[in-house]
Amino acid sequence: MKDKIHVGIIGFGTVGTGTAKILIENRELIKKRTGIDFILKRIADLDIKRDRGIKVPEGVLTTDAGAVINDPDIDVVVELMGGIHPAKDFMLNAVKNKKHVVTANKALIATEGNEIFAEAEKNGVEVGFEASVAGGIPIIKVLREGLVANNIVAVYGIINGTSNYILTKMTDEKVEFSDALKEAQRLGYAEADPTFDIEGIDTAHKLTILSSLSYGIPLSYNEVYKEGITKITAQDIEFASELGYKIKLLAITKLSNGEIEMRVHPTMIPNEYLISKVDGVFNAVYVEGDAVGSTLYYGRGAGDMPTGSAVVADIVDIARCDNGQKAKGIGYVSADYKIRKMEDIESMYYFRFSAMDQPGVLSKISGILGNYNISIASVIQKGRRLGGSVPLVVLAHTAKERDVLSAVKEIDNLPVVSDKTLFIRVEGKEE
Amino acid sequence: MKDKIHVGIIGFGTVGTGTAKILIENRELIKKRTGIDFILKRIADLDIKRDRGIKVPEGVLTTDAGAVINDPDIDVVVELMGGIHPAKDFMLNAVKNKKHVVTANKALIATEGNEIFAEAEKNGVEVGFEASVAGGIPIIKVLREGLVANNIVAVYGIINGTSNYILTKMTDEKVEFSDALKEAQRLGYAEADPTFDIEGIDTAHKLTILSSLSYGIPLSYNEVYKEGITKITAQDIEFASELGYKIKLLAITKLSNGEIEMRVHPTMIPNEYLISKVDGVFNAVYVEGDAVGSTLYYGRGAGDMPTGSAVVADIVDIARCDNGQKAKGIGYVSADYKIRKMEDIESMYYFRFSAMDQPGVLSKISGILGNYNISIASVIQKGRRLGGSVPLVVLAHTAKERDVLSAVKEIDNLPVVSDKTLFIRVEGKEE
Repeated sequence: MKDKIHVGIIGFGTVGTGTAKILIENRELIKKRTGIDFILKRIADLDIKRDRGIKVPEGVLTTDAGAVINDPDIDVVVELMGGIHPAKDFMLNAVKNKKHVVTANKALIATEGNEIFAEAEKNGVEVGFEASVAGGIPIIKVLREGLVANNIVAVYGIINGTSNYILTKMTDEKVEFSDALKEAQRLGYAEADPTFDIEGIDTAHKLTILSSLSYGIPLSYNEVYKEGITKITAQDIEFASELGYKIKLLAITKLSNGEIEMRVHPTMIPNEYLISKVDGVFNAVYVEGDAVGSTLYYGRGAGDMPTGSAVVADIVDIARCDNGQKAKGIGYVSADYKIRKMEDIESMYYFRFSAMDQPGVLSKISGILGNYNISIASVIQKGRRLGGSVPLVVLAHTAKERDVLSAVKEIDNLPVVSDKTLFIRVEGKEE
Repeated sequence: MKDKIHVGIIGFGTVGTGTAKILIENRELIKKRTGIDFILKRIADLDIKRDRGIKVPEGVLTTDAGAVINDPDIDVVVELMGGIHPAKDFMLNAVKNKKHVVTANKALIATEGNEIFAEAEKNGVEVGFEASVAGGIPIIKVLREGLVANNIVAVYGIINGTSNYILTKMTDEKVEFSDALKEAQRLGYAEADPTFDIEGIDTAHKLTILSSLSYGIPLSYNEVYKEGITKITAQDIEFASELGYKIKLLAITKLSNGEIEMRVHPTMIPNEYLISKVDGVFNAVYVEGDAVGSTLYYGRGAGDMPTGSAVVADIVDIARCDNGQKAKGIGYVSADYKIRKMEDIESMYYFRFSAMDQPGVLSKISGILGNYNISIASVIQKGRRLGGSVPLVVLAHTAKERDVLSAVKEIDNLPVVSDKTLFIRVEGKEE
């Protein structure tokens, strides 16, 4: 083991700045704890003029990523530029130069990770990606090491701070999605183009990684079911509350009948579940193991310093334990596995039908639900708007997604139904 | 790195059985994940007849601990017998035989750990103790590795399931301490002699370990302030609830003015804090780091399988990364440090005075509080019992413990105060 490790960072944005800050300001602390001196040797970024509020030693900044990747002194290359290209090439080149790499880039790991891990294994180097999921929460370490003795039963994650902020705002202040989004944008929690966050794409990237770690399968982003939060209304949140639930954008991976589920969608969670209390930009991941039972990990899912905390933990881990073993844990199973098709899943469901306010509507709708073996647990019907349409809310016991899709299609064709039905999958114990 | 690791267990009780179960039943899973085959070679216990509900291969059971400690094949000795003697000698002998050791024994680590770690370092072996705090929650790993880049600002833990069960029961069912304790004993959550749990001793053992990891100081059990939950009444819980708080037995360690606080006592926590929702036998540890901010880790703090999960994670870690680096992290600071004296701490406070129902009592009590710079935030006084005594509840802004002790002493000497004052420290933001 070396007692000095040289680190190079590519990308001096938010997370790059946080990482640099920690490496500089907490250098003595980390050295005391580990016996290793971590030296920040280079930071590459196209913009090396802007003031980031930290004092970087002279000679560290460069506009040339090659000066990091090809520096023979540098042991660990930290990729924090984001995006797929040229980040991927930078990482692969670093790996080929026998450098360990650390990244916070979930999109890159989720979509190109299999190739990067294979190349790393070939070159005997590590790939650290703790910062790619749930920011400062050490969830990758928990899954790979802390719960290594467990068959993973299920993982449920609130792993997109933007969506969680929006849903929390809608819940607390009874505002509509678009207003909550605007506020998130104003506060810098959502980007000008919020698609990645609100459509569940970012969540799906992270879920891909969690699922691979949990079940030892190759990264399979394309097989994740994705549904965003844009259709959720303040009214749905109020109905959910009345029924004893919160609405959260959940990433779910679990084993059902030997098949692996990977899905991202708005989900109703019972108020008494701890994860339903995770509000604002905070993230949390619930992990159930066959030995450990229920566990939950909570913290900030983004930000310069929390994400930097995870990046530096990866760098330290690699330096402490430089034996190639950590690379195991993604894709270790070469045997059969099957990703469950979305229409094969089973769940409880919340339906909001837009029904004309006429006699017999409930009977028609519930008749169709019954035909598809969807059994009703509770109904809320409120207010009357003569001749107009009213929301009819139905909470259903466990049913098959396939049946739900068919039933909704049939119901949406009824003349007494004025608008497309919204349904939300519901977690919790059957009563 | 070896591809086969031989494990010997001393102590075939609850945790020993869980550990053996996991090593046997999840052996293939762990081998797939790590590339290492973990072989359970020996289990020593005085009683090897009792049926533990698992099938142990022939030749594994022995009544002789020496058969584990001195077996040249065994790489890792797992001490799960509990107690100080002879567990300590067994561990030291194993270490002297150049065997790594893993234990769930918080009392042993907290009180004799400094000697054991020193001996382990001398012999170049590891001591794993993940299972000693918070059962299956990988909190030791989180502090040592996941948050290695952080100065730890504070740690707050609910780390004794028995006390938390009792307080939850008192809260949910409005029963008194003694009834809740009886129920805990009936369910096997509390022992016949519950002293260790309800007097905060077990919590203090665990806090000692968390504090050493957080601040790099030698294990200092004797300097932990300990106060149990026996004086909390159903009425206090109700008053707390009225004021917006839950009462929990908290382990607290934090830095204040360069001094380290280590204290265990009942604590009022605002309802909106996630940790206040941790109920029943569950444990949770809140950790605040200078980079990562607020994080929380939640799960089962005891039980055969959860604790076994942590034991096996330690065994795997040692096998994966056999380079002596993990031993760093307890006692790495040789420099000055100071444990803060309890009377030097500052906190908000809840007081329940037993005041005679007479005019002028509130003015007398609040006068004395004022003399000691204890400023009142809210008061609850309810009911009248002519000539009798009524509870007078005061919530005070941040004050010095030293002043609180003096004020309470003076107040308890007033003729209009009929019984000893109970006070509870209060966490949360000043309003």
